[in-house]
Amino acid sequence: MRYPKNLQILIDKLSLLPAVGPKTAERYAFYLLKQKEDDLKGLAETISNLKSSIKTCRNCLAISESDPCGICSDDKRNNQILCVVENIQDMIVIEKTEQYQGKYFILGGLISMIDEIGPEKLNIKKLVDIINKNKVKELIIALNFTLEGETTSMYLNKIFKNKIKLTRLAKGLPAGSDLEYADHTTLKSALKYRSELK
Amino acid sequence: MRYPKNLQILIDKLSLLPAVGPKTAERYAFYLLKQKEDDLKGLAETISNLKSSIKTCRNCLAISESDPCGICSDDKRNNQILCVVENIQDMIVIEKTEQYQGKYFILGGLISMIDEIGPEKLNIKKLVDIINKNKVKELIIALNFTLEGETTSMYLNKIFKNKIKLTRLAKGLPAGSDLEYADHTTLKSALKYRSELK
Repeated sequence: MRYPKNLQILIDKLSLLPAVGPKTAERYAFYLLKQKEDDLKGLAETISNLKSSIKTCRNCLAISESDPCGICSDDKRNNQILCVVENIQDMIVIEKTEQYQGKYFILGGLISMIDEIGPEKLNIKKLVDIINKNKVKELIIALNFTLEGETTSMYLNKIFKNKIKLTRLAKGLPAGSDLEYADHTTLKSALKYRSELK
Repeated sequence: MRYPKNLQILIDKLSLLPAVGPKTAERYAFYLLKQKEDDLKGLAETISNLKSSIKTCRNCLAISESDPCGICSDDKRNNQILCVVENIQDMIVIEKTEQYQGKYFILGGLISMIDEIGPEKLNIKKLVDIINKNKVKELIIALNFTLEGETTSMYLNKIFKNKIKLTRLAKGLPAGSDLEYADHTTLKSALKYRSELK
């Protein structure tokens, strides 16, 4: 005895989602089974049209509804400051701060020895092109402060050093954090880049 | 700046899944975005056809590919032993033990004061019909050993007492368990229903 065939197929497909096992997939499938026919058709349509409705911006390589994307085609934004991020998720969290008025560039990953991702797998050639084309003056490196992020930053630094101004996001203590539990590297950095009280 | 419209719609829909928040939904959506067009179409089709391809068995009320379901239409199985379960998931775990050769009945829920589920919301009328129709001799109550399961068992006991033989799954220590950590109720029950070594 197994579940009805189509239900089992759905469970198998849902268990391919990241960090979803058969039990969770089962829960999802039973949840879907309880939904209205129309809602299921709606979800199916969204999934079916997902890829065809989404474009990649020719400039920043972010996924977008239009090409070029809203940010790249916004004339009010500074073309000469470019913020390099790993992926669109990172781009969106930065956008949410409403602090940044330059443009973005999606690197498409980070250099990683373990996952065998070398610089040739990232969008570095395109980055060089954009920097030359737009006469970018400052490149803000907004990558994770992980081993992979640091390696990639060092690599970018090697390429663009002495050619354009390179900056990085500040490394320091996060808001609401407790000095007592701060790690050595963060604290060292927070001390070094301390800012003046005004 | 937000995600492309269709992607955001998908994220919103996926975050309706049980125990899925916006962050997890985002992960799922990005996973789906990386899949091949054909795989997405396949998943969409499965979801779209889910409800129409699944029937409810007229006898046991389990969801199934056919009506009556495979178990109900299996003549080799004993019609006069009926195992009452809460839902199809429970039915399937019992089937997996390959120990049971009777039929099943899906109660469709458990009596719950908190969730305001009274006996009238369960398939009890249908259960009475099936018991009469098939001249069932033994009713095995295979419900959870939770407050709701116990309440429902007591209710079934009240209805069928002195009419047919009523049995329940054994309550005792689970395989691999540690006496030291067993709770009082389980241990009491395990002692009371101890079995003879052969």
